[in-house]
Amino acid sequence: MSAIGLFDSGIGGLTILRALKDAFPHQDFIYLADTARLPYGTKSIATIRRYVERSLNFFSDFKLNSIVVACNSASVALLSKPVESAVPILNVIQPGARLAVEKSKNQRIGVLGTRATILSGAYEKEIKKLNSITEVISQACPLLVPLVEEGWFDDPITNLIVFRYLSQVLNQRIDTLVLGCTHYPALKDAIAKVCGPNVELVESSQALIQDLKDVIDSSTEKKGKIQIFASDYSPRLEEAIHMLLKPNIYDSLEVVDL
Amino acid sequence: MSAIGLFDSGIGGLTILRALKDAFPHQDFIYLADTARLPYGTKSIATIRRYVERSLNFFSDFKLNSIVVACNSASVALLSKPVESAVPILNVIQPGARLAVEKSKNQRIGVLGTRATILSGAYEKEIKKLNSITEVISQACPLLVPLVEEGWFDDPITNLIVFRYLSQVLNQRIDTLVLGCTHYPALKDAIAKVCGPNVELVESSQALIQDLKDVIDSSTEKKGKIQIFASDYSPRLEEAIHMLLKPNIYDSLEVVDL
Repeated sequence: MSAIGLFDSGIGGLTILRALKDAFPHQDFIYLADTARLPYGTKSIATIRRYVERSLNFFSDFKLNSIVVACNSASVALLSKPVESAVPILNVIQPGARLAVEKSKNQRIGVLGTRATILSGAYEKEIKKLNSITEVISQACPLLVPLVEEGWFDDPITNLIVFRYLSQVLNQRIDTLVLGCTHYPALKDAIAKVCGPNVELVESSQALIQDLKDVIDSSTEKKGKIQIFASDYSPRLEEAIHMLLKPNIYDSLEVVDL
Repeated sequence: MSAIGLFDSGIGGLTILRALKDAFPHQDFIYLADTARLPYGTKSIATIRRYVERSLNFFSDFKLNSIVVACNSASVALLSKPVESAVPILNVIQPGARLAVEKSKNQRIGVLGTRATILSGAYEKEIKKLNSITEVISQACPLLVPLVEEGWFDDPITNLIVFRYLSQVLNQRIDTLVLGCTHYPALKDAIAKVCGPNVELVESSQALIQDLKDVIDSSTEKKGKIQIFASDYSPRLEEAIHMLLKPNIYDSLEVVDL
């Protein structure tokens, strides 16, 4: 049976893998992390695009029904110029933008992301395509990815940094906030605490599940397998996988040259 | 006339370039930053080594009198297995270790570095070669590099993070602390504040200057040129160069494919 290919620059996309695995327990997943070149979010779109093409190439050895580009910065690079592919390639920007527009009542949406994602204006473009009068308030948050990698989730320092990044965004009376980087759901509690009860947080994974239902074959009843591939190995990678994917549900971890 | 080649994964090595430029104002410098693959410090030694070899290869197009590997993580990868080179290759670990041993009176030395540098134990090995009874207390500080890249130098959040990383090291009654990553001198004020007056901070650049005096030809009186090359361009890169290299002293910035 064909699998879902999931691509991320690193471990952040494991938050999406987990959500998809819950939604499609019988599906096989091939997860590829370009850990030798991460992070993407601090680099130029041209360089990110070169890396994404090499990574998508890796998937050609597998029988897939779809490829999910779980990394926001990689999704931006793909949206800037689509690539040819035999199977549908889904990005995380469009589902995230759609869900935000559906949820916002006052048409004031905040977007958090890496520097590459925010500089590209990709969320703003996609949101305005769906509802042109929406105000989009964007904020690059370069320290959040390293905080997640460091594992400082429930931590006063993390709360302070989240507060610093969010205070200007929240001043703009947003009612919806897009977590525009796959690392950020790991900091959802800290972000929700700073936002308070009147701001709804949007993760792409929920909208992605809807889109995937249209493309995958869910006729099987067997237990799905999860294979993880990474372009660089460190003991830290395995730790992070255990931390973000618990309960521990993957079948193999292999290092590959991209 | 031949130039000094300076290599770093990113912009951190500019702190060393600045120190060398002050010491050798008539020298030409070729600075290469592998910004497409940074940071090195979170990756495995095998992957770092592959990147370093490609970068050293780039220097073969220039007439150099020496190559300084300004990145601590890259220096670790080189120490693990030397590469062939027509000109001397200097690393930052050995001069840093030597200076720390010279300065320490109680033979208790702290070392701060990236995860790759600290995991390798390279400073500890070099320090113990020079003085086997020295106690070395090491601490990986993964958030300091992103803090420097974010430009949060004089900032209460930075002070808190530095305090978090340092408190256990300072408990060990060190009298000398090696700033074992080229980004860290940019946080020297914050680190000095947390350490207090009884701990001396060690930067490799001062010891490096001594080593370089033996290899370079300093017979010229002309104004030296600085050419900067980077494997990825972003507006942020130029900002960072202006921030770390002020007063602005470089002659050209070019993007190259490594």
